[in-house]
Amino acid sequence: MEARPTKWWGWGWEDKVLRLESRPALAAYLGHRLDVDLSVRRPVASFDQIEVPPSRLSSQDLADIQVIVGEGNLASDNVARVTHATGRGYKDLVRLRTARLDHVPDLVVYPEDEDSVPRLLEFAGSHRYAVIPFGGGTNVVGGLDVHGQFAATIVMDLRRLRRVLAIDIESGLATVEAGIRGPPLEEALNAKGLTLGHFPQSWEFSTVGGWIAMRASGSHSNRYGSIEDLVVGVRLVSPARVLEVRSVPKESHGPSLKELVLGSEGALGVITQATLRVQPLPLVRRFESRLFSSFADGVAALRAMAREDGLPDMAYLADSEETKFAAAGEGIAPDADGIAGRRLAEGSLLLMGFEGTKERVTHRRRVALRHARANSTSLGSGPAERWSHERFELPYLRDSLLDHGILVDTVETAARWSDLLAVYDHAKKALQEALWKDGTAGLVLCHVSHAYPDGASLYYTFLAPQREGHEIEQWEGIKAAVTEAVLDAGAALSHHHGIGEDHAPYLSRVIGEDGLVVLRALKRELDPDGIMNPGTLVMGSA
Amino acid sequence: MEARPTKWWGWGWEDKVLRLESRPALAAYLGHRLDVDLSVRRPVASFDQIEVPPSRLSSQDLADIQVIVGEGNLASDNVARVTHATGRGYKDLVRLRTARLDHVPDLVVYPEDEDSVPRLLEFAGSHRYAVIPFGGGTNVVGGLDVHGQFAATIVMDLRRLRRVLAIDIESGLATVEAGIRGPPLEEALNAKGLTLGHFPQSWEFSTVGGWIAMRASGSHSNRYGSIEDLVVGVRLVSPARVLEVRSVPKESHGPSLKELVLGSEGALGVITQATLRVQPLPLVRRFESRLFSSFADGVAALRAMAREDGLPDMAYLADSEETKFAAAGEGIAPDADGIAGRRLAEGSLLLMGFEGTKERVTHRRRVALRHARANSTSLGSGPAERWSHERFELPYLRDSLLDHGILVDTVETAARWSDLLAVYDHAKKALQEALWKDGTAGLVLCHVSHAYPDGASLYYTFLAPQREGHEIEQWEGIKAAVTEAVLDAGAALSHHHGIGEDHAPYLSRVIGEDGLVVLRALKRELDPDGIMNPGTLVMGSA
Repeated sequence: MEARPTKWWGWGWEDKVLRLESRPALAAYLGHRLDVDLSVRRPVASFDQIEVPPSRLSSQDLADIQVIVGEGNLASDNVARVTHATGRGYKDLVRLRTARLDHVPDLVVYPEDEDSVPRLLEFAGSHRYAVIPFGGGTNVVGGLDVHGQFAATIVMDLRRLRRVLAIDIESGLATVEAGIRGPPLEEALNAKGLTLGHFPQSWEFSTVGGWIAMRASGSHSNRYGSIEDLVVGVRLVSPARVLEVRSVPKESHGPSLKELVLGSEGALGVITQATLRVQPLPLVRRFESRLFSSFADGVAALRAMAREDGLPDMAYLADSEETKFAAAGEGIAPDADGIAGRRLAEGSLLLMGFEGTKERVTHRRRVALRHARANSTSLGSGPAERWSHERFELPYLRDSLLDHGILVDTVETAARWSDLLAVYDHAKKALQEALWKDGTAGLVLCHVSHAYPDGASLYYTFLAPQREGHEIEQWEGIKAAVTEAVLDAGAALSHHHGIGEDHAPYLSRVIGEDGLVVLRALKRELDPDGIMNPGTLVMGSA
Repeated sequence: MEARPTKWWGWGWEDKVLRLESRPALAAYLGHRLDVDLSVRRPVASFDQIEVPPSRLSSQDLADIQVIVGEGNLASDNVARVTHATGRGYKDLVRLRTARLDHVPDLVVYPEDEDSVPRLLEFAGSHRYAVIPFGGGTNVVGGLDVHGQFAATIVMDLRRLRRVLAIDIESGLATVEAGIRGPPLEEALNAKGLTLGHFPQSWEFSTVGGWIAMRASGSHSNRYGSIEDLVVGVRLVSPARVLEVRSVPKESHGPSLKELVLGSEGALGVITQATLRVQPLPLVRRFESRLFSSFADGVAALRAMAREDGLPDMAYLADSEETKFAAAGEGIAPDADGIAGRRLAEGSLLLMGFEGTKERVTHRRRVALRHARANSTSLGSGPAERWSHERFELPYLRDSLLDHGILVDTVETAARWSDLLAVYDHAKKALQEALWKDGTAGLVLCHVSHAYPDGASLYYTFLAPQREGHEIEQWEGIKAAVTEAVLDAGAALSHHHGIGEDHAPYLSRVIGEDGLVVLRALKRELDPDGIMNPGTLVMGSA
């Protein structure tokens, strides 16, 4: 299927691991803070332990589908079915590792041409089979879970719809099939001196269609925008309709259909292709790292930059717990007696990246440093550069933490500047209380990674010893507590991860019951049989 | 009603006119180019010539409505009804001036508080009365025309819903009622050191709700964005639902409801309030004017700036015809023998504005000038500064041209950079052919006023001697020809004026029949009786 296989049970390439043991300072730090015995191991179940029910599709079904997608473009073996049963959220990983999957799709199809997509949807609709569009499989909000009564479930993996259809260098527009992943897309663009500038942490695996479906953001969103800002044209093939958004730079054509496809999470149809804004490759890149005496000071500096249209192209501001964690990851024991260690133990780390022409970088770096300097000291370019090189590695560490029986997950939100520190405190407290509930240790880290004129994102990582045998319930309690806290504080239910199964019960809290009714009407129009990704967003039914 | 009355028959304040005679060079130029005798006058009909049918509302209706909106907040006199019968497009002005209105609303209401809006919609729905939300009344695409069979038509003028509800200085967010116009909003913001930075040519009269409903753009959209970029929260009161979009800087909450309200053109409900991004008032403003040897050279320079994230905050690039017109307006006879005149006769004028901190202005001006210099000569800051001061005056000139029997209208579109010059040529040719069809003279001007990384807008002004007695048919022929040309060339049906009655028949050409079906489903959900602004966007019915 793919030259380099990916793990069925965890993040990323099968041949790539990042062991906690390779970062002894971090291991020592976590062992101490979480009060866990790192010699204890929680190995991954063997694949054979997973109970995979027989596929509910008949041999006639398989023959019919093969006529539609072509030979070799469907798979009903257990590996294909299991690797398409979940995303890569904490709940997903626990289920996979402990061989407790509660649903497995009956078939995986890999359409090779766009024409087969509507035909597959028609076939599925006529049999009342659910269809789950699948991009890179890196969803972290339960977006691939199936709900409702369906005669069968078919996952549509779009990896073979990955052609670059056109690159318009003069306009800076690339039209691509939706199944293309980050690296081959960047490679094709780089060859023309261009970049998309969209680098979410899942970048190696996630796809254009997935980014659009989930309203993704990348590390350089301050410069290039989130995917919403990058998409100018898109095609959504739904069971009943085809929405085709033409690409013009700005238009006044009534309500935006593009903005209905963005965030559609597979529940309205299959995103088959998109036209994206691409920029000239930056000529110069510079990094800066600063240590603020407090997170609040760092937030104030970011806000001042944002209000002056002077944000760094990449900005990552860690609170003091995340700063300690980052320092431990780099081998600087943050609780040590050394001066560096003591400073990091109290400080808040800001990493900044600037890119573009030399003139642009000089200007923006000067503006950012002017605002940063007052309350911070320089740590040179090193930490920001290292972060930039290592950020795609970090998800691999999660699997190693799970090996050691450590719960680790993330939750993210956004709020206006005037609410940001209150939201930060409120959600942090909720996480801490939920983690510590039964007297267990727990660690809550937070950083800001996307800033706007009017506010910023907050991205929490939380860790605790797993409650063995009750991992999902433990996680559900924490997740519910922090979600309530975030919503109580008036912040976003999600900044860029999406709704999925995890957030669907809360969606009416942010868009209103009337908003939900409108989305359901939309779904009825596009997907009258309700077969598209039932379980996410509007939860299938009207 | 208002301290300073506005014209019932033309643009703007009743006590303000801009006569062609006050610009003798321009008058001479137009007289010559359009081959018209400027001594001939086509006076405005007297108000009494307008046949205003009796209001179809019963006295019981009026009593019921008065209970809802309160005494003094409704008007059924002829002046109120006529001034709310149309927008300010060419067709509207011709109809008003010649006393040929084909529909006049039965009542105008001025809700004073938001609560009365849903109650009014409920009342109207139960009687099957159409409701037309009305902001500043400056619509230029027939957006206030009524279609379909309704027992009566009520215009809801939102001018009394104009409070500034909250200004969050720290976040740069202002929450306002939708009926507020440009100047009082800027005044309230300026008092706090802030600006919205949204300055459409209708700014003195148009409202926040109107901008949102039509997806408006202002002269400084390169810096501040179009209204789509400025709105973070909005409330839409529709007959069946209330859509309430909460204001967070970015969210991944599924399809965007905000983007359904943007461009809703009164056909989905009434926009009652919005939360807008506001910026610090610029500390420094600088202007530059350049003359390129050709429009294509100017476009290339703008494109180079855009591709480098280095656009001026305001950029206005006139083609050679519009450059001559502008020169004539300033008293420089462009066909004269003088050197300045000869240069202008061949050149393409680029006006640029830069604003913000001194550092920002210095940087962006340097980048823009670097790209502009190669193919242009400096005309100093004067022309750009004068344009900036005079731009709200120009619509007054239109009325004077009509006094002289000159057809004048505008049409605007947008296209990607690689298509822009082809679209420019194609639409220009279509306009010229349509104008010249019967051997009459005609003049087609064009400028670029909004630029993006991937393309730019094109804004045409066309002038010709009116065909007396057949003004509307003459205009319809031209409008149809240029609209076909623009769509054939793959450009936007509208960049920022919207759909209205004029563009509604073409909407499926840009969003597809399936897109239209989705909009109709949306309308059915929000406005099941189809009473909201029937005639615009989806043309009322499913």
